[in-house]
Amino acid sequence: MNELYDVIIIGAGPAGLTAAIYASRANLKTLVFEAEVNGGKLSKTHMVENYPGIASISGLELAMQLSEHGQKFGATLMSGTVEKVLEDGDHKTVLLTNGQEYHTKTVVVATGTKERILDVPHAKEFTGRGVSYCAVCDGFFYRNKKVVVIGGGNSALEEALYLASLASEVTIIIRRDVFRAEASVVDKVRSNEKIRIITRHVPEQLVIEEDRIKGLMIRNVDNNEMQLIACNGIFPYIGADPCTSFLDPSILDPNGYMIVNPDMSTSIAGIYGAGDCVVKDLRQIVTACNDGAIAASSITKYLKK
Amino acid sequence: MNELYDVIIIGAGPAGLTAAIYASRANLKTLVFEAEVNGGKLSKTHMVENYPGIASISGLELAMQLSEHGQKFGATLMSGTVEKVLEDGDHKTVLLTNGQEYHTKTVVVATGTKERILDVPHAKEFTGRGVSYCAVCDGFFYRNKKVVVIGGGNSALEEALYLASLASEVTIIIRRDVFRAEASVVDKVRSNEKIRIITRHVPEQLVIEEDRIKGLMIRNVDNNEMQLIACNGIFPYIGADPCTSFLDPSILDPNGYMIVNPDMSTSIAGIYGAGDCVVKDLRQIVTACNDGAIAASSITKYLKK
Repeated sequence: MNELYDVIIIGAGPAGLTAAIYASRANLKTLVFEAEVNGGKLSKTHMVENYPGIASISGLELAMQLSEHGQKFGATLMSGTVEKVLEDGDHKTVLLTNGQEYHTKTVVVATGTKERILDVPHAKEFTGRGVSYCAVCDGFFYRNKKVVVIGGGNSALEEALYLASLASEVTIIIRRDVFRAEASVVDKVRSNEKIRIITRHVPEQLVIEEDRIKGLMIRNVDNNEMQLIACNGIFPYIGADPCTSFLDPSILDPNGYMIVNPDMSTSIAGIYGAGDCVVKDLRQIVTACNDGAIAASSITKYLKK
Repeated sequence: MNELYDVIIIGAGPAGLTAAIYASRANLKTLVFEAEVNGGKLSKTHMVENYPGIASISGLELAMQLSEHGQKFGATLMSGTVEKVLEDGDHKTVLLTNGQEYHTKTVVVATGTKERILDVPHAKEFTGRGVSYCAVCDGFFYRNKKVVVIGGGNSALEEALYLASLASEVTIIIRRDVFRAEASVVDKVRSNEKIRIITRHVPEQLVIEEDRIKGLMIRNVDNNEMQLIACNGIFPYIGADPCTSFLDPSILDPNGYMIVNPDMSTSIAGIYGAGDCVVKDLRQIVTACNDGAIAASSITKYLKK
């Protein structure tokens, strides 16, 4: 426990694992903590078709390849949830929720984002039994059943397409008239016979019978008229929030995203950000990897000083 | 020839091909020009071990995978050298050296960099027969012979390692005391029995006998003493310059690199940069891909306006 690491990376998604590749190739003593699943949100993604050089791969497989690659040059990958990063003179102390402490010269925060929770009554108690945030994990339970997907971004539409391969009917509910997703994905959704799209509606209430979800009541945002969508499963993809609550608020923007310089450093010396949890316009696997490479490379220079 | 493209991408390296993936997935009418080899400099790289998710792959293979991926969603890839990008009202005209003209709403310049030419007498006339800028292309000709690699960056050392698998002896000449390359690569070089390292020397003169290279005269930068290194082949990796001479100088820095905003736009509306040819700190395959994704995504937004 008294070992001193050159860098502790928090989060083993694409950003964190790429930082691990670059840090360990630079011979830095590197430790990576992952609170949930190696590969992060990627491991819950059905198919990836826009990671350059790999024309088509399941999210889980790419997550596994990244995890292996991240450890290939000597980085250690451990399970653990970080509670706090403390300043400790020149060094940092990374405190885990299980009470363990790890010491390091630098930290890369690559914790990504977490899907926003559906905010209607009883949604929380039905999470895992009717309300799901992972189509790939739970889609199988809805074979030949009816499901609703809420949201119009890439995640929502890609998961809707995946669900359409299992469910008997997929209804996409979006608040606006238009999708935010890539045009090619929108085209696929529109041409899928199992998918119907309801625009300008928001979820209002779960319809529960005998302790099971039987439908979702949705509201028209123009005239407030209610409509019942019969369904057995609900998949909300209504945005995400950065997993940064354990950090000093001085390095966060009002939405909780990390404010980083072009070299991925923050205003606290030795603390770097990378991937979806930093302020940026385009959150993609390849842009997360980019951040991880830059963060590790900046740290290599920083430690030589 | 009168077709109007949404985007013309100049250069089919990792940056340009990633831009092609993202642009065509956004249903943009996309054309890519490559002046030399698809995959760019990557296609001349022996092995790649730091492209996240692919633990080890030959540069040529990754280049081919990227080329295929870049065309998978409808982008057209063509051979052609761009001479000029002209403003044409709201549109751009891309003029090729063969006189052909192509019209487009936007342009992504992803032309990368070109290895700097060895600046000693006769180096140019012996290029291809003793002086080579591509170990992977020409290394085979030096089996069991002696070669010199000039330079101390990642390219130089990686190529030296590759050449050591073929040549009988590899001498690395560097001007400084230390290498700029990643520590893990430096370690491999230092532990390779076939490689010797001569620091604080620069190349001065080719030693030619019967119209063939027999050695390289190098000079000690401290005391100007000369030393003869017997060799049959010389591989200079002494830096690179951006391939941007066809662009308006107003968007270039004094070294010829493109000045881009975080969204990869330049000060000329509709012209974007991506990859090694833009001003940046870390030039890697994954950072080039990042730029390409961002450029295409920014163009998608720009064209919707």
